[in-house]
Amino acid sequence: MKKFCLVIFTCCSLAAFAQKQDYPIQPVTFTNVKLTDRFWNQRIETNRTVTIPASFARCESTGRVKNFQMAAERQGKFCTTYPFDDTDIYKTIEGASYSLALHPDKKLDHYVDSMITIIGNAQEPDGYLYTARTIDPLHVGPWLGKQRWEKEQENSHELYNAGHMYEGAAAHFLATGKRNFLNIALKNADLLVRTFGPGKRHVAPGHQVVEMGLVKLYRITGKKEYLDLAKFFIDERGHKEYNKKSKIVTENGVYWQDDKPVIDQTEAEGHAVRAMYLYSGMADVAALTGDKQYLAAIDKIWNNMVGKKMYVQGSIGAVGDGERFGDNYELPNATAYNETCAAIGNVFWNQRMFLLHGESKYIDVLEKTLYNGLISGVGLDGKSFFYTNAMQIHDNFNHPDIERERAGWFTCSCCPTNVVRLMPSIPGYIYAQNGRDIYVNLFISGTGDMKVNNKDLKITQQNNYPWDGGLAFTIDPASSMDLNLKIRIPGWAQNQAIPSDLYSYQTPVNQKVEIKLNGKAINYQIEKGYAVISRKWKKGDKVEMNLPMNVQRVIANDKLPDDAGKIALQRGPIMYCAEWKDNDGKAGNIIIPQNTTFTTAYEPTLLNGVTVLKADVKSVNIDEAAQTVTTQNKTLTAIPYYCWANRGKGEMTVWFPEQVKYIELIAR
Amino acid sequence: MKKFCLVIFTCCSLAAFAQKQDYPIQPVTFTNVKLTDRFWNQRIETNRTVTIPASFARCESTGRVKNFQMAAERQGKFCTTYPFDDTDIYKTIEGASYSLALHPDKKLDHYVDSMITIIGNAQEPDGYLYTARTIDPLHVGPWLGKQRWEKEQENSHELYNAGHMYEGAAAHFLATGKRNFLNIALKNADLLVRTFGPGKRHVAPGHQVVEMGLVKLYRITGKKEYLDLAKFFIDERGHKEYNKKSKIVTENGVYWQDDKPVIDQTEAEGHAVRAMYLYSGMADVAALTGDKQYLAAIDKIWNNMVGKKMYVQGSIGAVGDGERFGDNYELPNATAYNETCAAIGNVFWNQRMFLLHGESKYIDVLEKTLYNGLISGVGLDGKSFFYTNAMQIHDNFNHPDIERERAGWFTCSCCPTNVVRLMPSIPGYIYAQNGRDIYVNLFISGTGDMKVNNKDLKITQQNNYPWDGGLAFTIDPASSMDLNLKIRIPGWAQNQAIPSDLYSYQTPVNQKVEIKLNGKAINYQIEKGYAVISRKWKKGDKVEMNLPMNVQRVIANDKLPDDAGKIALQRGPIMYCAEWKDNDGKAGNIIIPQNTTFTTAYEPTLLNGVTVLKADVKSVNIDEAAQTVTTQNKTLTAIPYYCWANRGKGEMTVWFPEQVKYIELIAR
Repeated sequence: MKKFCLVIFTCCSLAAFAQKQDYPIQPVTFTNVKLTDRFWNQRIETNRTVTIPASFARCESTGRVKNFQMAAERQGKFCTTYPFDDTDIYKTIEGASYSLALHPDKKLDHYVDSMITIIGNAQEPDGYLYTARTIDPLHVGPWLGKQRWEKEQENSHELYNAGHMYEGAAAHFLATGKRNFLNIALKNADLLVRTFGPGKRHVAPGHQVVEMGLVKLYRITGKKEYLDLAKFFIDERGHKEYNKKSKIVTENGVYWQDDKPVIDQTEAEGHAVRAMYLYSGMADVAALTGDKQYLAAIDKIWNNMVGKKMYVQGSIGAVGDGERFGDNYELPNATAYNETCAAIGNVFWNQRMFLLHGESKYIDVLEKTLYNGLISGVGLDGKSFFYTNAMQIHDNFNHPDIERERAGWFTCSCCPTNVVRLMPSIPGYIYAQNGRDIYVNLFISGTGDMKVNNKDLKITQQNNYPWDGGLAFTIDPASSMDLNLKIRIPGWAQNQAIPSDLYSYQTPVNQKVEIKLNGKAINYQIEKGYAVISRKWKKGDKVEMNLPMNVQRVIANDKLPDDAGKIALQRGPIMYCAEWKDNDGKAGNIIIPQNTTFTTAYEPTLLNGVTVLKADVKSVNIDEAAQTVTTQNKTLTAIPYYCWANRGKGEMTVWFPEQVKYIELIAR
Repeated sequence: MKKFCLVIFTCCSLAAFAQKQDYPIQPVTFTNVKLTDRFWNQRIETNRTVTIPASFARCESTGRVKNFQMAAERQGKFCTTYPFDDTDIYKTIEGASYSLALHPDKKLDHYVDSMITIIGNAQEPDGYLYTARTIDPLHVGPWLGKQRWEKEQENSHELYNAGHMYEGAAAHFLATGKRNFLNIALKNADLLVRTFGPGKRHVAPGHQVVEMGLVKLYRITGKKEYLDLAKFFIDERGHKEYNKKSKIVTENGVYWQDDKPVIDQTEAEGHAVRAMYLYSGMADVAALTGDKQYLAAIDKIWNNMVGKKMYVQGSIGAVGDGERFGDNYELPNATAYNETCAAIGNVFWNQRMFLLHGESKYIDVLEKTLYNGLISGVGLDGKSFFYTNAMQIHDNFNHPDIERERAGWFTCSCCPTNVVRLMPSIPGYIYAQNGRDIYVNLFISGTGDMKVNNKDLKITQQNNYPWDGGLAFTIDPASSMDLNLKIRIPGWAQNQAIPSDLYSYQTPVNQKVEIKLNGKAINYQIEKGYAVISRKWKKGDKVEMNLPMNVQRVIANDKLPDDAGKIALQRGPIMYCAEWKDNDGKAGNIIIPQNTTFTTAYEPTLLNGVTVLKADVKSVNIDEAAQTVTTQNKTLTAIPYYCWANRGKGEMTVWFPEQVKYIELIAR
């Protein structure tokens, strides 16, 4: 491990401490963070032991691997549905690489190498790697142009495949130190550099991700052409002179954030996953080039998304038709789409926004997404997935977009393989550093190792988060050192449900979080959402605090008609829902009156261990004969939203009417 | 009058009987139709005595006339809000002209002439006429480009003003035989001919109407350049090479039907009024040029609109943001926009579709719109107007787009002045002719004079439509003649609520309408929706029939969630609604159970005389204390939708739940 860590550390440190411009704040890379945390360890372990093997197995059984083998032999017929199916292998390798760094595994290591060999064999001599064309260039499917990249702006996804290849290769190199996958990626990237750019070929990538991928190759190699090409691809958006005739582009401009130049874009719009990848790529390029216009644009877009287009449990992309953002305040419950990939992309983007600005609001959004609308995308079994994440399941309402149970795999399986790569990277989101400013963003038990002026610093967290609010941090510098320890005080602990007026708490409680240093309460300032403790720290210094874990009634902005007269339930970072299973077979009939008191109980055997909420509430019943609606007393049991639909199919709701008049007797 | 009629007749006959291509069917022009009909005469008389004078008075008091006077002096400051305010004068003159043809009025005639003089003075030497620029070309508002027509494709409306000028001038010439307004229009049109076209300036008009206007000038003058220019403007849509940089155009392509060439358009999309004017213009040009591609496109678009985007009372343009068509089946009740101008445009378009195809389904849509969602746009007082036409008014639901009462005038006053010109033109929609095929489309008492082979033919209608189904037609040829009399049998009289599966009748009754000829029942064929009676007709032949006037429960397609479990009420062509005023202060609490029996009663003093529906139904009541919903018996009184909101503000609904579970306890 140490060797890998060193490799990684050197690489990151290059980016972090070299003279050239970069994010002012640098994350403490996941390989320098060891988790003891129960909540996340069990998920990461399930990902390692179940999800990754299942993912590779499905890449083989569905023909995704065979596509590469046929491409190597230049014969056969592309045997899966989408030309971007190649990416599922790249993304699974990316996840496997993270996993290998945390948990060496010779067998997996060799298997990954064998996959990389198969991938390499499919690469054409000039570096082009895209099985759907290479297998039989003369008989390509409807998604492909007759020539390379001809339909890139529409839906060939040639550059999308490349981007995921780069991300996988970069992760594999950083985790293992091996160059076998990296070299394949660089050879492909060099082809793109030769092909695209000013005076060369122009295109706005149809599905973004190549921009982030190129930046990762740039960070590893320092080859400026990769960064320039990433910026070129981004700047191509919103300029259509070169393909006047391509009607679909004009029609779908907004769909792929191509309706205007990125620096003129002000709203989160179009296909949500493409949007997240674009904004993340813009953040990377802005950090590395100091581009102020990019910065201004993504700041505006972020405010629009968080202020007008985000669900209460952190999901985005409300509309199924186009897998896209809706209009401002278009957040329907019955038909919420909420692609899992979009939640993952939202984590990527908010991490980058934090690294740019050092404000906790970005991590507030990241945490909300991570603990709720993202991990709901994978079942507790680690091998069942939601492509969409519903807000409401009603027995009498069916919609083709709404998934009531998780599936093992999808024809378009982007979400499962995105989960594969996201899960083991979680440790990389906990700590960050800017010289002597040490950021603690997430509350996950374990240790983080970093260097301050080349002196070691270890931070140890002990907590039972997200179930308990008690947090303990032990600071262990190699020797005493001046540090500004910046511990994030979550918005939800300061009466802010979300960094906007989209959602708020019905009964705010004002209590500044008390912080103890070595047992004694201290005064502290809050800067940009962080409790800042500046002092000379010595080995074993202990910081303790208690985040308020009361159940909070969340209400929505009046502009959200579906949520009118309703509340959502939050405790700590966790958003709750009611499922049929715990509530006499129904969830859409529950009323939670004002002044309801809640009790909480941690149930270790339920759903891998969750804290449930219980309360005496009302439920309605329709008397068909009398044509009346009556209310009865009932006991509500609410479970964390992320673990719904792990016990079969049935009604579920996130929003609860406070009075009978707000009940939807029929879901619409 | 006779002289005018001759003038008109000659003009129309030119179009009708000259060799050149045109609509196969020609309307019997409104000046050849005299009404004795109570329902329409009172409206046309109110329009003449109240609406037209009020409209002119408002054109003066708001500064619209002053704009022309300042333009004449080339000094001052444009003193209204929109550059297209000029059109309100053009449209009022158009309405006044129709009125003058039906009802000579020296005072009005002279006033119109004085207005035309004022308009003429504002015209620049080369024919340009657009007060917002002419007043002070160096200081134009945000809507205008620095140069003429520079922002036409965005929102300057220079060609929109021109189009309404042409329509007004054509009507004035046809009605009065005077050329004073016509000459102004022709001078302007000649400027357009010099300015726009292949090899000259290119633009897709931002707000269509100039296309229809040019066609009217072509019909009067026979000058082919006008027709060619109309086609040129239409064909410009969906081609953006010439204004790459104009970002707003790219963004808003769909908004103004400019996202693709018109012949590739398949859905009713974007701003509903612009759409109606475009499709009407396409129909005109298709008729005059035989363009099959236009025909194919508007046929597709019509099927999309009638099949997926039309409200049950005939309104269109569901979405306020953009005054546009929603997606397929996006027909919300709480926020329905339904601009009055769009209903008027829909009448224009469907009349033209009928003239092209000779099918009654177009008149079915026209009648539904005319008797319901269109005339709801004007109050019974003739001087209050709805810009939008709601489907539902709920005490607890407010939305900026939803008007609860009519207003006298609007900053953008397109709707009132569109009503002004539509109302007196109604007689022109009743009869049509194709040689010996005589079409009776609308059932409005009065006489229609036409010529068959230069022999006079008079048709007299006697009925009490829309309140009674009894229809009597007297056929008076100058001497016996062979005719195919084609009397429209409305879809609603044949179990077809609308020519699509969007709405249907819950309990179809199958009964072929009986037709008597001179007192004896006859067999007849139905062709394209018309009862065809072919024979040698002699003076005084009498045709009688009875259309079924039972109350029909209309249900919506399952794809309309807002209407699930609900019914609308129709009797004859009239759609009904319930208003707070007749129903104990509320309307949103009404349930109409299955098997409800209705009684009808004509109330001569209510709302200028209407047939109301009464029934014993249920209403729900929310018991806040018990948090229950109870149902009571209640008597429903439903009034025609078109006359809602004439007695103050309060709840109104068009759709009624059949069971308590379909009640919206709270409107959303």
